[in-house]
Amino acid sequence: MSIAILGYGVVGSGAYEILTKAGYKVSRVLDVRSYPELGNILTDDIEDILNDKEITVVAEAIGGNTFSYDFVSRALKAGKHVVSSNKHLICSYYKELHALAKENGVTLRFTASAGGGIPWLYNLKRGLLCDRIEKVMGIMNGTTNYILDAMITDSRDFADALKEAQKLGYAEANPSADIDGLDVARKTAISSSIAFDAVVSEENVLTFSLRNIRKSDIEYIAKTCGKTVRYLGYGMRTENGVAAFVEPTLLPSEALEANVRTNNNMISLFGEYVGRLSFYGQGAGKYPTGNALAQDIINILQGDTALFCAESDAVICNGEAKRAYFIRTNAALPLDFAESSETVGETRYIFTEKISVAQMHETAKKILAEDSESFFAGMDTE
Amino acid sequence: MSIAILGYGVVGSGAYEILTKAGYKVSRVLDVRSYPELGNILTDDIEDILNDKEITVVAEAIGGNTFSYDFVSRALKAGKHVVSSNKHLICSYYKELHALAKENGVTLRFTASAGGGIPWLYNLKRGLLCDRIEKVMGIMNGTTNYILDAMITDSRDFADALKEAQKLGYAEANPSADIDGLDVARKTAISSSIAFDAVVSEENVLTFSLRNIRKSDIEYIAKTCGKTVRYLGYGMRTENGVAAFVEPTLLPSEALEANVRTNNNMISLFGEYVGRLSFYGQGAGKYPTGNALAQDIINILQGDTALFCAESDAVICNGEAKRAYFIRTNAALPLDFAESSETVGETRYIFTEKISVAQMHETAKKILAEDSESFFAGMDTE
Repeated sequence: MSIAILGYGVVGSGAYEILTKAGYKVSRVLDVRSYPELGNILTDDIEDILNDKEITVVAEAIGGNTFSYDFVSRALKAGKHVVSSNKHLICSYYKELHALAKENGVTLRFTASAGGGIPWLYNLKRGLLCDRIEKVMGIMNGTTNYILDAMITDSRDFADALKEAQKLGYAEANPSADIDGLDVARKTAISSSIAFDAVVSEENVLTFSLRNIRKSDIEYIAKTCGKTVRYLGYGMRTENGVAAFVEPTLLPSEALEANVRTNNNMISLFGEYVGRLSFYGQGAGKYPTGNALAQDIINILQGDTALFCAESDAVICNGEAKRAYFIRTNAALPLDFAESSETVGETRYIFTEKISVAQMHETAKKILAEDSESFFAGMDTE
Repeated sequence: MSIAILGYGVVGSGAYEILTKAGYKVSRVLDVRSYPELGNILTDDIEDILNDKEITVVAEAIGGNTFSYDFVSRALKAGKHVVSSNKHLICSYYKELHALAKENGVTLRFTASAGGGIPWLYNLKRGLLCDRIEKVMGIMNGTTNYILDAMITDSRDFADALKEAQKLGYAEANPSADIDGLDVARKTAISSSIAFDAVVSEENVLTFSLRNIRKSDIEYIAKTCGKTVRYLGYGMRTENGVAAFVEPTLLPSEALEANVRTNNNMISLFGEYVGRLSFYGQGAGKYPTGNALAQDIINILQGDTALFCAESDAVICNGEAKRAYFIRTNAALPLDFAESSETVGETRYIFTEKISVAQMHETAKKILAEDSESFFAGMDTE
């Protein structure tokens, strides 16, 4: 029994180092780049891995959803267990890949795809053994938490904090996936799919960007209601299905999430029996994420080949989840669900009554059409 | 395959309800009390369970270390897997019971014995798959956290907060095991044994009571260094072995632990690869702890029978762990490791330089001999 790793980037090389140090045999690493230190285990030909009968587990750490999809589906067809840290791949092709795994009697694991080093998805799945999960929620993106923490703690501007995050390697040159919420939406979709045993796709997750937040918003919120802001993904059961959304969210300053510093993550499940369980740690990085990938691999080598299992689509009911909102906008659009509002110069600061998440996101489109710099945040009411 | 539960108290009845609702067969419950609702599955004779070939897993939720030890060792000898929520039993007899389990080819699991509903020990064990744990640390007792939180948040006296905790059922009529630290010492011993793969016994864990803390201590600490107090268990690798101790500890108010409210727990591991991972949730209670017990059982029924494994004794080096301390005492004993001190009336408030945990606990005995109401707290320096 040996292991192949696809992609020798940050996560792949971390997993390689951890696995070999722990005495596991990584017999192939696939990458098109040159890594002389890998000697003859490096290959750029997937066939070398697919045809090697000794390789029983393939770890995918390429990223994206093109090569990764091709290689992972072929590995599953070749009867190899697959472990992936790639939320993009899992979100795009979960159902196909799950079916392939089932068909070929192998497993597909992806703990590292949400929460990085935190054994979040693994525990979420274990949480279903005899409990019913009502809600998942949390800080799932280290980049945006770093930015918010810098804005709140060091009173920095958004642009300034983003630049700092880029300098530290937390944010990409094009930071959109982080700050516009796609990364969190994918992790929310994957988490919800497991929690509610029904596939939620990234398109189902209503998402407000963090991009428009200003230092003055944070100050206004602190002054008027003593709260702070975190960027959170939510998945929850509703009367007839599931709601899933990603929103900047107002929290009391003593909330655990409000005290998650720098680029750390904290993700929680709410079980009928267990109540709230929260998991905190590094949501990214070579060793934390590499470790999560390696743990999934070792679990499989030790014989634990159960699947993360949702097969049918979730019934998406974003109209059934309700919360209050904070809005800062220069748009003049009348809002009949405003509970209180204050106008400073041209700018309106609005606290709404509880409305449905779907309605708020519909209305937000109209507000953004009038003022593209408007900022929206939900109010947590746990 | 069916399950027997020993003890139908808070945890046992919680596990029973959860398992039967989830479709698992509990064919026997042992208790000497009468529970008509259990019908003919109730027994007061352990032989009914030992001789039943269909029963493959026995869950012990009796508490104490007399009957529980007798029944658990006989169940292991009868070739049955055992799951326990009983820290007292595990701390007293871990090595014997572990040896018995190994000898008889069965497993002994006890996730619910530390952290209650939090899958702490389970994840700690999983954390060892390919990482090295340097430290475990956390709030492991809900009663004392409830008391501290009430003292800090509501400005209550210790006696007052303790009475409230007793009224709510969090604290026993004799609260010593909680407030004097034995409960946390046992959980620290069990956690350290797993983390460092070497048995730490409860006698190895140096323990300061929380009993002597006063509202005025909390106020003094907040005023002089802006910190707050939590009651924490620590296990850590040292140069030549392991240090383990339970101490009231000064923390910055933005520390995650400082924001753990009421009777919740938060326990963390520090791994070489993964960094800090923290687990938060209900540390006690019928359904949370019952759920943790049920999860261990289901894992075993599904074929996961690996052991929590320490076999040899840890080398205890409490002289090798160093931290600074806060002391409030009326004792006049000179302390050559004091870094700063202030005297108010008869009372000395002392902040020490970093000294070894062993030395501080030795000195504390002398101080307590002079003033039995003296209060000691370590300074966290993560």
